[in-house]
Amino acid sequence: MSVRESITPSEARAIIQREVAPLGSERVALPEALGRVLCESVVAPRNLPPADNSAMDGYALRASDVAGADSQAPVDLPIAFEIPAGVEPEQTLQSGNSARILTGAFVPAGADCVIRQEDVERIGDRIRVKRPVPHYDNIRRAGEDVGRGDEVLSAGKRLGPGEIGMLASLGRTIIAVHQRPRVAIVSGGDELVEPDGDVSGGRIVSSNSYSLAAQCMEIGAEPVYLGIARDTPEDIEEHFRTAMRADVIVSSAGVSVGDRDHVRSVLEKLGCSLLFWGVRMKPGYPLAFGRFEREAGPLVFGLPGNPVSAMVTFEQFVRPALLAMMGSRNLYRATVRARLTEPLTKTAGRLHFVRVHLERDGGVMTAHSTGNQSSGALRSMTLAQGLLIFPADETELSEGQEVEVQVIDPDFLASSQSGF
Amino acid sequence: MSVRESITPSEARAIIQREVAPLGSERVALPEALGRVLCESVVAPRNLPPADNSAMDGYALRASDVAGADSQAPVDLPIAFEIPAGVEPEQTLQSGNSARILTGAFVPAGADCVIRQEDVERIGDRIRVKRPVPHYDNIRRAGEDVGRGDEVLSAGKRLGPGEIGMLASLGRTIIAVHQRPRVAIVSGGDELVEPDGDVSGGRIVSSNSYSLAAQCMEIGAEPVYLGIARDTPEDIEEHFRTAMRADVIVSSAGVSVGDRDHVRSVLEKLGCSLLFWGVRMKPGYPLAFGRFEREAGPLVFGLPGNPVSAMVTFEQFVRPALLAMMGSRNLYRATVRARLTEPLTKTAGRLHFVRVHLERDGGVMTAHSTGNQSSGALRSMTLAQGLLIFPADETELSEGQEVEVQVIDPDFLASSQSGF
Repeated sequence: MSVRESITPSEARAIIQREVAPLGSERVALPEALGRVLCESVVAPRNLPPADNSAMDGYALRASDVAGADSQAPVDLPIAFEIPAGVEPEQTLQSGNSARILTGAFVPAGADCVIRQEDVERIGDRIRVKRPVPHYDNIRRAGEDVGRGDEVLSAGKRLGPGEIGMLASLGRTIIAVHQRPRVAIVSGGDELVEPDGDVSGGRIVSSNSYSLAAQCMEIGAEPVYLGIARDTPEDIEEHFRTAMRADVIVSSAGVSVGDRDHVRSVLEKLGCSLLFWGVRMKPGYPLAFGRFEREAGPLVFGLPGNPVSAMVTFEQFVRPALLAMMGSRNLYRATVRARLTEPLTKTAGRLHFVRVHLERDGGVMTAHSTGNQSSGALRSMTLAQGLLIFPADETELSEGQEVEVQVIDPDFLASSQSGF
Repeated sequence: MSVRESITPSEARAIIQREVAPLGSERVALPEALGRVLCESVVAPRNLPPADNSAMDGYALRASDVAGADSQAPVDLPIAFEIPAGVEPEQTLQSGNSARILTGAFVPAGADCVIRQEDVERIGDRIRVKRPVPHYDNIRRAGEDVGRGDEVLSAGKRLGPGEIGMLASLGRTIIAVHQRPRVAIVSGGDELVEPDGDVSGGRIVSSNSYSLAAQCMEIGAEPVYLGIARDTPEDIEEHFRTAMRADVIVSSAGVSVGDRDHVRSVLEKLGCSLLFWGVRMKPGYPLAFGRFEREAGPLVFGLPGNPVSAMVTFEQFVRPALLAMMGSRNLYRATVRARLTEPLTKTAGRLHFVRVHLERDGGVMTAHSTGNQSSGALRSMTLAQGLLIFPADETELSEGQEVEVQVIDPDFLASSQSGF
């Protein structure tokens, strides 16, 4: 397969998605299944509720015994027994009697409704009922929530707290979910040091490793940071050999056409087929993508070295790929329509992702640039709630125009208002 | 302070928020700071970039040397030296010379612009320039992203991947963030067993403990599940004594007015002041809230025992309280306006949170009930993307009416479309 060069972002997306498949299953303990995607269909082994039970604290009785009751002709029923919670009632309720029952307790055989304690007058060891009670009133029927044999959750469902509670109810404590991809992260460059390193004399911090690892963690993928590769074919090869046990390799820097960019030749030497190089977008043009031919070999994303380019290409291409590997269906960020509060211009040819500040003003959403759009300006990423999509063929967006923005700050989707 | 009874949901919210304050700070390692809220202001100890550096692979030169260059009168400049990445250039560029420079390498003294390698003709050890180059072209200026002494991140900022990258760039590896609340979870009831327990004879699984723990974990709070308390004052007291070392206690069941509900008296015995009991909402009326008078004593939420009531009251009241303790600003779920696809009715007096299925059909959002709205019907929580707010005073919502819905399924906010 030949390397495609200088393709569009949507072509890049299509090529990547063709190579991506959900990872296999693993069994995890129930609490660890939160946020994971179910890899099995869950069929209920039991009814929920398991038996008819009381929805209220009150008295179980037979509806026919009080069918004619009213305040003029109340019906008195002796309290024959009491049904504790968590115990199957052994006694059968005989006609003309009642049984004390608490919320959740099983309705005894013979009873077919429950009257709330607030609705009776208790006189010693009997109750006085002054109105009829409909059949099954205040009774939660066996299996009314879930019937034995029902498919309760289907494969592909993301497990939130409700699903965790449901699985617990059904007695499931070991759950099959899609595996999380291990993502090997490598940065390359002689100028790079770790954040605790000495930056005198022209060195800079390998911040990409940390932002990219955080982007992995944010969606539940597992970063494995392999450190900084120096600009020699030997050191790069050593790092990539270690990385090959991962599901995905994400390298930053080293895929450009500069003199010192050895990554591409090392990758090819190791058996990686490059599928594309160069995507007509800004930031992020020098993006490479490939895969190892050997079975279950990792996918490889060669991201640009500039901090913003690395984050934006991860956001657009690596993130959806990782989500798909985890079995997710919705792979992309929420987008919103916003009104641009300033004009923006560019040359035609590349799609721009413009870092924007989003604001909600009543029902109106506005977007304005965070300023310096240099691909080195990491600060703009800390100021941005969104990435405005400035299409490749457009050269001007006017003030007041409606634009489409990907929301990259999840906190922006939360609200400062409770809604009530 | 006296216990307020049967209050509105917004009164409950106000009472809780008065008792809640952000927790103090702790120092965590950089990668662990992801998603946490910053508890310090971060001032840059250095410029970013640290010095003028090249945005391209090319040649550093003096703009004045090529001011008159064009294709008719090209200017040839010898390549005097090469500047490796990660090394402070020692040599000064003399007029009439150029220096080979790679992306990210520091611009040498004497040079004031960079020309891209694609824009020159290389002839042996010299370059031929056929056009003028503006001052500072292709140079990222020292401090253009962040100036030394700038406040780069303010206290209260939630740390996403961009902030993690920024902190790394500034050499910060230990970060002060708000502590995460420890949430003691206790369930009460003689009928309860753990998910691996024997449910014969009327016992049911204590699923609330698992769904509530998951609701804590979803927002980064730390659940500590203390197990099932039996319905005796002694066992309940023992569980609550253990729970008192937490920041928040969440109990489910045991705060109703049933014969066996000992929680309230045990709490009072231990020094907890109940601030309210009973909230005019459905599901979830029997909600209690209190605090321990002793310094730094935990807040206490007594949630109803029904699975849906427990989850909905957690969602409306515990979740925002925990988020506030973690220093978050946006405490509530995103709400959307949706068109109701069926009529809904209720009696006046209580606010209902109706579990609804949300669908996006082009630009139109629709909501319909998930069916069985019994507070025991956990399945409805697995089917719901949202909670429709049916105001207390309303009795009818008509088909086609626009309603407000809290989005409780974060996956619903994600998109199946990339936006490009």
